[in-house]
Amino acid sequence: MNNSLLLKSVRPTGGGSVDILIINGKIAQIGPSIKPPEPHTDQIEGENALVVPGFVDAHTHLDKTFLGLPWQPHTAGPTIREKVDNERRLLRTLNLDTKTQSEKQARLHLSKGTTHVRTHVDVGAEQGLSHFEGVLATREAFAGLLDMQIVAFPQQGMITNPGTAELMEEAVRLGADFVGGIDPSVIERDPVCHLDTVFAIAERTGVGVDIHLHEPGELGAFSVDLICERTAALSMTGKVTIGHAFCLGMVDDARLTGLLDQLAVNDISIMTHAPGAVAFPPVSKLAAAGVRICSGSDGIRDAWNPYGNADMLERAMILSYRNNFRRDDELERMLDICTFGGASVMGADDYGLKVGCAADLVLLDGETLAEAIVTRSPRRLVLKAGRTVADNGDCVV
Amino acid sequence: MNNSLLLKSVRPTGGGSVDILIINGKIAQIGPSIKPPEPHTDQIEGENALVVPGFVDAHTHLDKTFLGLPWQPHTAGPTIREKVDNERRLLRTLNLDTKTQSEKQARLHLSKGTTHVRTHVDVGAEQGLSHFEGVLATREAFAGLLDMQIVAFPQQGMITNPGTAELMEEAVRLGADFVGGIDPSVIERDPVCHLDTVFAIAERTGVGVDIHLHEPGELGAFSVDLICERTAALSMTGKVTIGHAFCLGMVDDARLTGLLDQLAVNDISIMTHAPGAVAFPPVSKLAAAGVRICSGSDGIRDAWNPYGNADMLERAMILSYRNNFRRDDELERMLDICTFGGASVMGADDYGLKVGCAADLVLLDGETLAEAIVTRSPRRLVLKAGRTVADNGDCVV
Repeated sequence: MNNSLLLKSVRPTGGGSVDILIINGKIAQIGPSIKPPEPHTDQIEGENALVVPGFVDAHTHLDKTFLGLPWQPHTAGPTIREKVDNERRLLRTLNLDTKTQSEKQARLHLSKGTTHVRTHVDVGAEQGLSHFEGVLATREAFAGLLDMQIVAFPQQGMITNPGTAELMEEAVRLGADFVGGIDPSVIERDPVCHLDTVFAIAERTGVGVDIHLHEPGELGAFSVDLICERTAALSMTGKVTIGHAFCLGMVDDARLTGLLDQLAVNDISIMTHAPGAVAFPPVSKLAAAGVRICSGSDGIRDAWNPYGNADMLERAMILSYRNNFRRDDELERMLDICTFGGASVMGADDYGLKVGCAADLVLLDGETLAEAIVTRSPRRLVLKAGRTVADNGDCVV
Repeated sequence: MNNSLLLKSVRPTGGGSVDILIINGKIAQIGPSIKPPEPHTDQIEGENALVVPGFVDAHTHLDKTFLGLPWQPHTAGPTIREKVDNERRLLRTLNLDTKTQSEKQARLHLSKGTTHVRTHVDVGAEQGLSHFEGVLATREAFAGLLDMQIVAFPQQGMITNPGTAELMEEAVRLGADFVGGIDPSVIERDPVCHLDTVFAIAERTGVGVDIHLHEPGELGAFSVDLICERTAALSMTGKVTIGHAFCLGMVDDARLTGLLDQLAVNDISIMTHAPGAVAFPPVSKLAAAGVRICSGSDGIRDAWNPYGNADMLERAMILSYRNNFRRDDELERMLDICTFGGASVMGADDYGLKVGCAADLVLLDGETLAEAIVTRSPRRLVLKAGRTVADNGDCVV
């Protein structure tokens, strides 16, 4: 017998009310007044809630959250290097168990309707693979509940932190999906050596690349150039993501056009979380150039900032607010970045609201998607592969 | 017999746990283990919640909200003039009752812990005093529940909209507390005539001035100059507020220093809601120069933007996020703008957490104020003059 669930009276992305039949975790039928196929088919009354596919948090750090701890005041200095060093000191003192902490964050993601996460995980000479192993254990514990990709991330530097490159490659062989990187010039002081090392690991192991790039203006743009060149040289089209990429919001229009051309040709995707005070990639221009865009929470209650809360509906609001978007279609495009954009970057083939897609669904309050974004009520219901994982804002797994 | 209430085990602005005794709507005693003064003193168990004074929303528009209506997609063009004209068209079509709409917003304010509001109210040749009369009726209906100041606001222009100045003066004579103004050059096309008219009404009626100033860069700075000159000439020190003042975030440091000097000398206060995509007044520099700062929701679900939600705790988060503030003391300063800053601008003498102050109190979840700002849970309890006006996020009056 099939495992079937009938979700009644929901409005896909704000359209007319339909029923959604889920069989064995996948969307089997969408339409008005679907009859339960079996006498014991479970039924959920959607009460005309909006339904969207599960949110995709394509850039976060599951291994470093302070969730559940007493409040940790922010103590870092303003530069990236100070934040890196301060975090290491803090984490050394707190000596947290990564599996325990990352499980807390995984549950928070589910409570907010996020079903797909790409997490950067610190790998370095000091902590070795301990963060990675903790997150890997959480990924296994949440298999089928939360789709998770892991980036082996050299937060403290790789060239400047000997032994890290070898550990990153080891992490990939043990299950990491991506090789990470960070500010080839500002942190690593040697852009060519850093990027060559990152791409060499990717080439040997056959995985993609996801690089943190906070570097400003022309320095950051130069790093983008180098990343594009290596992506082309290694035929890694579609397998590279650049996170933050503030520089794309800083260079002049002519330079930006050239960069976007190269990003589009190499199908390098861009992640922005819409930072509060620095420039960030102009999402409309990126989209017009054919560059894929995703978003994420970045750190959630960690040593970097106190703001992250795993709520991708709030992220869609922040993306909209920071872009001065006010129209419904504009807000919907920002939500699209937090759903389909992220799913595309994560290569989630069975993602969406069509027959055959995984039944990863979020029921939202609101007459329209725009209203859902500005009100951000607790999620009514979150299904992962047809299973209830959160109910009225609370994770239930 | 006195009307007494004992609020037990609360933490004023995050400090140690104390009891607060309220008698006849005022704070009568603060300290550990206060005994109820009368057998029938009501008691509320605060469970160690944070307590802060009621939030102050010092810039909003009670007369134009769409609250309670079906979702109204944003339809305005990008310029201020297009937004003004589009709004007038919309409001003409919807023909809303101002008292009904403003009452909805008043209840929303209370539900979020806001006990003090300064509202701009459209006065113009087309709508006459109808908006003003509706908001005035709401102010009377909420007397003792929500302190409200009204600004007679020439949204559609005054020089460009004959008859408006006379109506504004009439509004002041009928109870408006401030004369408003708007973009003397960009909207009104005649900065001297606009400002002379605004200040002449203020001089004749003896009230203060609160001017919307969206004008960019040097044009806006010129308007600030003119406002400072008139404030000095009419000895209106401490009676003038400029809202938005984006120009203060746009001019160079030397020009800014000169402007801040003049603002401080004339004690002209600045309101910023921390817009998403344009520059805004640098709050740290303003504070260092001795300029008083307040904040507000601006429009709440109206024709201008879909974001406003009356939540001043969220406003403190947005102020912090847009300033790249991360430390506890920085976040607390932004909350201070949304409490004491606004109270100072509104001249609320009995405001605060000291004996003798009005018992306008908000109980918040969180270990620290910074945590309360980043989590923004529904308000546990809101008291206005010792009376419960909201409970667990819901307005109860």
